[in-house]
This record gives sequence, structure tokens and C-alpha cells, in this order.
Amino acid sequence: MRLSEATVAIYGLGLMGGSLALALRGKCRHVVGVGRRPEAARKAVDVGAVDSSTCNLAAAAAHADIVVLATPVRDIVATIPLAAEAMRPGALLMDLGSTKREVVAAMDSVPHEILAVGGHPMCGKEAGGLDSADDTLFRGATFVLTPTARTTGEALALATELAEAAGACPLVLDAERHDRAVAVVSHLPYLLAATLVHAEAQSHLQDPVVQALAATGFRDTTRLASSQVDMMLDILLTNRDAVTRVLNLFEASLADMRAALRDPQALRKWMEQAQAERARVFA
Amino acid sequence: MRLSEATVAIYGLGLMGGSLALALRGKCRHVVGVGRRPEAARKAVDVGAVDSSTCNLAAAAAHADIVVLATPVRDIVATIPLAAEAMRPGALLMDLGSTKREVVAAMDSVPHEILAVGGHPMCGKEAGGLDSADDTLFRGATFVLTPTARTTGEALALATELAEAAGACPLVLDAERHDRAVAVVSHLPYLLAATLVHAEAQSHLQDPVVQALAATGFRDTTRLASSQVDMMLDILLTNRDAVTRVLNLFEASLADMRAALRDPQALRKWMEQAQAERARVFA
Repeated sequence: MRLSEATVAIYGLGLMGGSLALALRGKCRHVVGVGRRPEAARKAVDVGAVDSSTCNLAAAAAHADIVVLATPVRDIVATIPLAAEAMRPGALLMDLGSTKREVVAAMDSVPHEILAVGGHPMCGKEAGGLDSADDTLFRGATFVLTPTARTTGEALALATELAEAAGACPLVLDAERHDRAVAVVSHLPYLLAATLVHAEAQSHLQDPVVQALAATGFRDTTRLASSQVDMMLDILLTNRDAVTRVLNLFEASLADMRAALRDPQALRKWMEQAQAERARVFA
Repeated sequence: MRLSEATVAIYGLGLMGGSLALALRGKCRHVVGVGRRPEAARKAVDVGAVDSSTCNLAAAAAHADIVVLATPVRDIVATIPLAAEAMRPGALLMDLGSTKREVVAAMDSVPHEILAVGGHPMCGKEAGGLDSADDTLFRGATFVLTPTARTTGEALALATELAEAAGACPLVLDAERHDRAVAVVSHLPYLLAATLVHAEAQSHLQDPVVQALAATGFRDTTRLASSQVDMMLDILLTNRDAVTRVLNLFEASLADMRAALRDPQALRKWMEQAQAERARVFA
């Protein structure tokens, strides 16, 4: 099976599902959008994101060569058995969820004739919904593919083709390593952004001028605090152990910083290290 | 004295001083740039940021109606008596430093015939230097003016005119309140960004894939960690008490977050509050 001949069903027509549908236009035979609400399904056709749409996941899955689940993670985990039950033997089940261990475990429990690969495109915006969907969202982004115990070469090849068709760069990674890494570079930044907003809110109660002085630095550092709550809540609840370990690591780094604050030379060195390490990440 | 008739000397030709010079072009009689290095002084003339330049602060100050100090805060504090000694009676001394208590205290110690107002435009970029200077940097930004014990109505009026000429929105605020507020919305975000980078660096040592998964969320949350070290170090060292209080506040918020993580309903509420409070700040 090649992507160009495939009928792709995308379940969840928000930012991620909608953007994938737009990015796959003309690159597969047919894209069917599966909305969780009738209005969402209708709108996806109206704006030209999909060729057709339905609210009936089982019906769409029964005719699809590839089914991509693009809802919040806990919904993906709950939907995997329902989708797999309706799918044809040899069809590929994928997802776009932001944590991967629970997804991969659920995929390993579906009938053996269903192919399955977990996926996580490392892109997004804080504004969700089909209105924010964008056919360039995946362009240049790392698209993590997490094999399950039974993932075949054929399944991985087709998933890779889909990721590349959307403009992303596939990276095969096991679910455990994925979940540990995103706890550091994605879930911890969200939690710090939101905690910083809570700290500002406390200060603002004491002196409203605090808000008037918030400029671009505060805006960027707290951007993730405006993330969609439904999506982010599922992420945190399905990666709690890794998030907790990373919070412990962060608190140790925080203690190092407070120690450095007492000594100008140590502080300068600590600041220069942070500057250099960030240049390493975004070289 | 009106700004249009004034000779303005700007000491420090980096991002802030250079941008102010560019923004004041055509809005005062003459802008003289005072470089700390001969190359910087020459370059400011070459790129058309200033009408003339020198490395001799005393000479420039002696002929100026307004002297603006635009170097890191500890250098500003050290330079205030030197500039004031050379200035003409009735001339106005200002600065663009990011903390204000030590600046205002130093300004209150100069001869009484010198006018003085502290200033802090709430704008910037992480890249410093004249190459990053931009005549639109101040546009729409809040420009805090901190009166000293002796600031006259005339001094405040001229400082206000200068801030407005640069495109900024003047906000008169006492130095104590300013320093407390920026500790929350500026210095704390910097310290969290840099601490997050240190935590990522630790994780990266254990698994280099961490870096590969860093995307736009990590980029934005850590942007301030790339701030100029010289500038930021002076800020932290001249606002250590306020920064320490804000770190205590943040750690209390962090403990609230960790408690919420244990309970899905409490976590959702905590996340929704963060989202709403951020919408308040950037309405």
C-alpha cells in the first residue's frame, strides 16, 4: 500500500487533525474527517480540509486504509479498541497524541491483523480548533514514530511516508524514551509557564501595576500557559511519573540557581552556561 | 527647554542606546553618541544612528541639554556622578537601566542644579549591540519614569517628551514599586528560563534525544535565557532582595502545582486559572 492510493480517516478535526488533513490534500486518494460533533464534521468539508466527513468512526474506519486518531491522549487510548474493531485486516492505525506509552500499550492489545504505529508531531500552537489549522504546521517539524511490539516494516514505511507527505521529519523512537524526553522539553515548560502566571496573579493582587509592566519577555515565557486545557490535562495525566521526576530535577536546578544568586562570580558562570546550553539546543 | 531644541548625549551605543538614538532622529537638535570603545563610537556615526560621536563622556555631557545613560545598571550607577559633574546647570540626566532604586539613589546625590529622572523602557530583544538596534524598538512600549526626591515638573515634562518622541508610553512610577514589579514579570521569567535550560542540559547528558524533541514551546519558554549576561547580571545584583522574595512566592506556587498534579479535578481548575489569568494580562 502506498499513501497515494490510500483512503485516510482522521478522527478529531481540531488543530492537529485539521492541519494533517490540509497537509495531505492531493497526496492520498481520499481523506475522510471524523468529527466528534456534527458541526465539526460539516465545517471540515465546508472549509475544504477533507473530501468527506462523518461522525461515525466505525463506518469511516471500515473503509479506510489508514486511521489517524487526533484527539486528546486519553480519548485516543479509549478509542483505539473501537477503531481497530471496525478496521480492515492490514489497515494501519496511527495517532497524533503527545504522550506515547499508554497509546502504544493500547495499540498492542488490538487484533493482530491491524497494523499500528504511534505518532507525535512536535509542533502546535496554543490556539486550538479547526480555525487554527494550517497546512504548513507540520513542515520541518520532527514527527516521532513509536513502534509497538508488533509494528511491521510495512507499517513503519507507510507511517513514514505519511509523516513526510505532511512535510515533517520522521524520527523513530521508543515510547518510554519519548515520554521521558517530552516531559523535559514540553510538559515542564508548560507547568513552569502556568506556575509563573499563578505567581504573577498573586503579585498582581498586591499591586496591579505588575500587570502593566508585563512585556514581551513575560509574554513569551508564559505562552504555553494558554495551551488548550483538555489536551494538556490528558498529557499530564498520562505522563505523571516522568513529569514528577522532571520536576524533581528542576527543583534541584532551582536550588543551584538560588545558591549562585549569592555569589556574583558563580552567578555569571551559571548565566553563561545557560546561554551556551540554549545555543546548543537551537544552533 | 523643548526636546526639539535639545542636544542629547547618549552614553552606551548598544541595543537600547542605539535604538533610542535612531528613534530620536529629527526630533532633537543634535544627538551625540558616547561610546565606551572607539569602534562603537565610530560605527554609530557610520550607520547614521547619531549625528556625531566621542568616547569622552565629560566633553559630551558638558555640551548636552539631556544626557541619557544606556549601559548596564551597575555602570549607570557608577557613571551618574561623573556625568553630573560635567553637565551644565539645568541640564537633564536620565538613564535606561532595568532596575531603578540604586539609580535613583545615585541621582539624588548629584549637585542640585542638575535635573534628574530615572527611566526604564519595557522593551528589548535577547540579541544586544548596535547591530540589533531598531528605531521601532520603543514603539508602543511602556516607558517607566522614576522621579527622584528632587525631580522637578520641568524635568519630568522633558523626560516625558523624550519617551513620547521615541514612540513609547510614559508611566510615572516610584523606584521601589518598579523594582518589585519587574522582579515578577521580568527577572523571575529570566531565572526560570535559564534554570529550565540547565535542567534540559542535565537530561540531555542522560539522553541526547531530549534536544531533538525541543520545539517551539521550549524555544519560547527559554528565550530569555539567551539575554545578554552583562546586562542581566547587573539587573539581578541590583534587585537581589526583590528577586529573592519573588522566588519564594514562585516556590509556593510550585508547591500548589505539585499538589494539584495529584488530583485531576484540582489540576484542571489550576490549569484553567492559569489560562484565564494570562488572558487578563494580555487581553
